Amino acid sequence: MKTMNDLFLHLLKDIYYAEKQILKALPKMVKAAETSELKRALEKHQHETEGQVQRLEQVFSEIDKPARGEKCEAIMGIISEGEDVIKKGDPNVIDAGLIAAAQAVEHYEIARYGTLIAWAEQLGMADSVSALKQTLEEEKAADKKLTEIAEASVNRKAA
Amino acid sequence: MKTMNDLFLHLLKDIYYAEKQILKALPKMVKAAETSELKRALEKHQHETEGQVQRLEQVFSEIDKPARGEKCEAIMGIISEGEDVIKKGDPNVIDAGLIAAAQAVEHYEIARYGTLIAWAEQLGMADSVSALKQTLEEEKAADKKLTEIAEASVNRKAA
Repeated sequence: MKTMNDLFLHLLKDIYYAEKQILKALPKMVKAAETSELKRALEKHQHETEGQVQRLEQVFSEIDKPARGEKCEAIMGIISEGEDVIKKGDPNVIDAGLIAAAQAVEHYEIARYGTLIAWAEQLGMADSVSALKQTLEEEKAADKKLTEIAEASVNRKAA
Repeated sequence: MKTMNDLFLHLLKDIYYAEKQILKALPKMVKAAETSELKRALEKHQHETEGQVQRLEQVFSEIDKPARGEKCEAIMGIISEGEDVIKKGDPNVIDAGLIAAAQAVEHYEIARYGTLIAWAEQLGMADSVSALKQTLEEEKAADKKLTEIAEASVNRKAA
């Protein structure tokens, strides 16, 4: 890693891999969720994630590189915590656990997209900046929505 | 995991383990940082992290449990990305890479403390809520400071 272009490509591959893993994990979370409101929020985010993967592919093409992921241990760890909740969580608390896992995923993405945007700005990649900012806003909104669902009903039910 | 108390204890052990790993990782990041401003910010956060570990120990004592960590794959993955930067990063870009890694750590913690606070509120643990909120504010401030350092100088130097 000698240049900011190297850093950028490395992180782009990391988040591309992460988004694809998240796309595999979300349907399992939707299925495991008890309340319909959480199911709907996770389903909505699944559709958004499909669009986010496409945006990443645009960014790869802006830097003339093939869209390829690179294994990211962090997201695997975060997702495996969510799988633990699905396996071991009692119906009364499973939604609270799923929201916690999903918010850890969201914050991982918020960190990564924040960095990618800052680097893309520095590298003068205007189109990529705009695409990545759109995704960042979706991630922040998804995180906020999960907080609302937790506070409105899920946590009270679990306690 | 049958009750919210179970979820809470599980996540408390997860973040306790994570904070201890972060305490081991930070001195290596301080040593690897090129600019004195980043070194200072990471050092400051190292001291804060020591206090955060103590606060977690207070929370364990509020629920009458021994302070014990539980291996958290997510933080290991995030930290290992930071170690990669230290190993492979060229001096011109290492600070940009270190800031990215540190912000992924911060966001992991922001997610986890946010959840712990919501659950502690639901469980009526007023002292823990107040201690955990103090830590959450420190994590958010550390994240913001890293963004400032990146934008003020580090990213321009790296690009």
